[in-house]
Amino acid sequence: MDTRPRDNAASWQQKAYRVIFESDTRAGQLFDIALLVAIVLSVVTVMLESVSSISARYGPQLRAVEWVFTGLFLLEYLMRLLVVRRPLAYALSWLGIIDFLAIVPTLAALVLAGSRYLLVIRTLRLLRVFRIFKLGQFIGEGEFILNALRASRFKILVFLSSVITLAVVVGTLMYVVEGGRNGFTSIPKSIYWAIVTMTTVGYGDISPATVLGQTLASVLMIMGYAIIAVPTGIVSAQMVLPGTSRPAYKQVVCHVCQAPDHRPDAEYCWRCGEKL
Amino acid sequence: MDTRPRDNAASWQQKAYRVIFESDTRAGQLFDIALLVAIVLSVVTVMLESVSSISARYGPQLRAVEWVFTGLFLLEYLMRLLVVRRPLAYALSWLGIIDFLAIVPTLAALVLAGSRYLLVIRTLRLLRVFRIFKLGQFIGEGEFILNALRASRFKILVFLSSVITLAVVVGTLMYVVEGGRNGFTSIPKSIYWAIVTMTTVGYGDISPATVLGQTLASVLMIMGYAIIAVPTGIVSAQMVLPGTSRPAYKQVVCHVCQAPDHRPDAEYCWRCGEKL
Amino acid sequence: MDTRPRDNAASWQQKAYRVIFESDTRAGQLFDIALLVAIVLSVVTVMLESVSSISARYGPQLRAVEWVFTGLFLLEYLMRLLVVRRPLAYALSWLGIIDFLAIVPTLAALVLAGSRYLLVIRTLRLLRVFRIFKLGQFIGEGEFILNALRASRFKILVFLSSVITLAVVVGTLMYVVEGGRNGFTSIPKSIYWAIVTMTTVGYGDISPATVLGQTLASVLMIMGYAIIAVPTGIVSAQMVLPGTSRPAYKQVVCHVCQAPDHRPDAEYCWRCGEKL
Amino acid sequence: MDTRPRDNAASWQQKAYRVIFESDTRAGQLFDIALLVAIVLSVVTVMLESVSSISARYGPQLRAVEWVFTGLFLLEYLMRLLVVRRPLAYALSWLGIIDFLAIVPTLAALVLAGSRYLLVIRTLRLLRVFRIFKLGQFIGEGEFILNALRASRFKILVFLSSVITLAVVVGTLMYVVEGGRNGFTSIPKSIYWAIVTMTTVGYGDISPATVLGQTLASVLMIMGYAIIAVPTGIVSAQMVLPGTSRPAYKQVVCHVCQAPDHRPDAEYCWRCGEKL
Repeated sequence: MDTRPRDNAASWQQKAYRVIFESDTRAGQLFDIALLVAIVLSVVTVMLESVSSISARYGPQLRAVEWVFTGLFLLEYLMRLLVVRRPLAYALSWLGIIDFLAIVPTLAALVLAGSRYLLVIRTLRLLRVFRIFKLGQFIGEGEFILNALRASRFKILVFLSSVITLAVVVGTLMYVVEGGRNGFTSIPKSIYWAIVTMTTVGYGDISPATVLGQTLASVLMIMGYAIIAVPTGIVSAQMVLPGTSRPAYKQVVCHVCQAPDHRPDAEYCWRCGEKL
Repeated sequence: MDTRPRDNAASWQQKAYRVIFESDTRAGQLFDIALLVAIVLSVVTVMLESVSSISARYGPQLRAVEWVFTGLFLLEYLMRLLVVRRPLAYALSWLGIIDFLAIVPTLAALVLAGSRYLLVIRTLRLLRVFRIFKLGQFIGEGEFILNALRASRFKILVFLSSVITLAVVVGTLMYVVEGGRNGFTSIPKSIYWAIVTMTTVGYGDISPATVLGQTLASVLMIMGYAIIAVPTGIVSAQMVLPGTSRPAYKQVVCHVCQAPDHRPDAEYCWRCGEKL
Repeated sequence: MDTRPRDNAASWQQKAYRVIFESDTRAGQLFDIALLVAIVLSVVTVMLESVSSISARYGPQLRAVEWVFTGLFLLEYLMRLLVVRRPLAYALSWLGIIDFLAIVPTLAALVLAGSRYLLVIRTLRLLRVFRIFKLGQFIGEGEFILNALRASRFKILVFLSSVITLAVVVGTLMYVVEGGRNGFTSIPKSIYWAIVTMTTVGYGDISPATVLGQTLASVLMIMGYAIIAVPTGIVSAQMVLPGTSRPAYKQVVCHVCQAPDHRPDAEYCWRCGEKL
Repeated sequence: MDTRPRDNAASWQQKAYRVIFESDTRAGQLFDIALLVAIVLSVVTVMLESVSSISARYGPQLRAVEWVFTGLFLLEYLMRLLVVRRPLAYALSWLGIIDFLAIVPTLAALVLAGSRYLLVIRTLRLLRVFRIFKLGQFIGEGEFILNALRASRFKILVFLSSVITLAVVVGTLMYVVEGGRNGFTSIPKSIYWAIVTMTTVGYGDISPATVLGQTLASVLMIMGYAIIAVPTGIVSAQMVLPGTSRPAYKQVVCHVCQAPDHRPDAEYCWRCGEKL
């Protein structure tokens, strides 16, 4: 998404751009934080309205507050369109679509009663919190976690596939073993139970009652217990191993080729062979 | 299992062999993916049939689809027998037996009513998903996880034995303490409870109600909480330690100073600066 | 907090100071342990009084014991004020406030009936147990854990923010999906359910009953299962990485070749063989 | 415990000693395995007897089997006393006491009806399984885990104390918040709930119903979720760090002082300074 300011932008546009889209100025940071507070408050309003006892007493006031926030977000959305270099590109980007969808439900509810539930989309704006993370200390940390996860994404995918295959096999077995009783009324429901059990959540809404079923469940639990070690091991290893664990490298950059990440005891650059 | 193509194989047999058994050609990859999709769909069909509300309405259609898939799998099985070098070896291998058992239940159901439940075996074919993992990026990752698990198999065995011994001892104690009430009706059931608790699943179908029982349960929970650290530590350590983490280094030694452990993208030795 | 003894302190004040505030003398250690035992016993008394069957029988005795402990803690509090260099600074410090609040509720209960519940504050005195940890072996270990947690505090903060954002989004979705039934009566309650599920606690007081709800719950569980790997990875990595794991090495550098990282029991430099 | 054979032992005594107490001969290994099988079978007998439906039908037979095993264990116990160098030392050792207690309950049940429940002690004999672990491959692995746990025992103790303090504080708070309703009928019960929640077991026999209670519970769950990272990190780190992870050391022993565990890049012995 090209969100640079317009070249031939008026002075107020360039200024507004820096405040709304960037966060390297004091005003920009304040705007980001104010926006986040507004999002949180608007989400809290929607939450409170869903509580029937509160809704019965403060319904009109909460709806009024909701309209105020919708108005503010509409204003913000229009401002973004006005100051960004390519408004269409912004409007069609992920952030732009979420920003737009956060406004629509309140308006749509005037025409279609049930559509207010779509306000659920507004909670997605909370993801903007990650932009705020870019401020100061949080940059490195957030990136560190994301890098470790990204580097292990194939391992995690392989792991999750195995877990799901196991859940399907064990779930089907349990359906046969418990014979459609004790909550195991269908294979999908039994698979749901297998996932609930293997992840050690264990609601107890479905639980085996036959001896064979309880034995099989015990085996699944102990397996789930041992299996949880795998993703943890993957992420731990990723965070410790060279690629991710920066601190394990020499804090020096080659003066010729600028290559980073030298071994702590390296005397020559690994890329160009120059003396460090 | 010797699954190489026949030496004196007709041209179509060799071609079919490459498609069915291998996945290094485009056609072979497509076949593998199509097979996986067919397995998933046939498993989904069996699942849907187990849901009574769906079965009541679409029963005949689902059974028809099941027959189509059984036909396809039968065709595939015969093809495999035709093109493989030693058909008997294939038929008696693990994969061959599973392939065969995936077809039988639908046919057997014609004679014996209850035998359709054996379709549960078809879910085992999902394990073929691991062959697909061999494609591209997944090879290394799957092997990495398996290697770490294989290297720690004795440690995990020792750990699991200790966990089971503990479950037996605590389960028996709880049977005595709760005196056959509150669901602890027998020692095996109490051991089942101990496993449910120690693995932090916690269904709540059985839970202690006496003061002594709840105290003992608390101790078991905190132990289980601390114990879960052991398999995690084992796998993490295995993934971090040299034996496994080597792939992060270049498999080359400097020809001048013999320094090992170069970065995978290093071109010069980190110790003497010589070209690798 | 300046808790040194008074300069112009009487001999008995200096002596009492060493016993009450420090733990490097035998008497000081005994005092600390006696205090801890008294805190534990007083907390146990409050606990027992809350059990209605015990309270009905031994109510007066328990209340008498409570008055004895309150008297002892009052005496201890006055002693601390008498012997410390700056009594006001102590009284306004965290520990001082907790010490004070631990006495008040019993007295306040004479005037205001319900205020005895404030005795809950006395349990906070249990945190003094960490001072006892300072004795002997525990210093290093406690500091090691705290250092690892402190070093990863930003990572953990980022992680927790993501978890809470996810809980809000999924909770709201579940409220819409389950439509206010099966316990999902409001968005805050649905978020509570999402947290119960994602942390794998799984009470089962609220659990999805619709197919879509159970599917969404399964996804959330598997995500929670994978996500738990992140904080574990963070803390493990922190404990393994150089910055924290240093204590495993001798805090000395060879005076000849400046080589660091000697074994804690090394007597000679591993690089040049010089006596350390 | 001095369990060497008697000096002036008869030939059959020395032979029996090697079979019963040691496991470096083929006969000794067979004896250990036979004993383990007997223990497992006798424990299974006790278990089956506790199941009322099985006990009603096969009660007499199971009791007969129990008498046979008691006879065998009595014989084994007497043999051990006969062949060991210092019978009294063996009889008073941990293993000796457990061996003795495993026989008593069946005999005591003749006099005192309820004492049969003491057969629970027999399950402790299962711990002998660890002696069998000493055979072959298991030695190193079992020791590796125990070493890692032993090395982190203080850290784990500090951690568990913190967890229990937190459970007491939060439990008492919840008792006040929920006001003795929804299962939080006393402080000890609330602490039990706090432990059930923090360890992510989550039975659901007690769960908060007020808004404040559910909020507090959510905070506790997320804390428990983050806290579980600590013991895992401790054990992982212990398994990876030098002290435990032998492979990280040079596979060489000083030819002068026999000191092991040199850094992989060490050129001089860390103990005597000799050139390696």
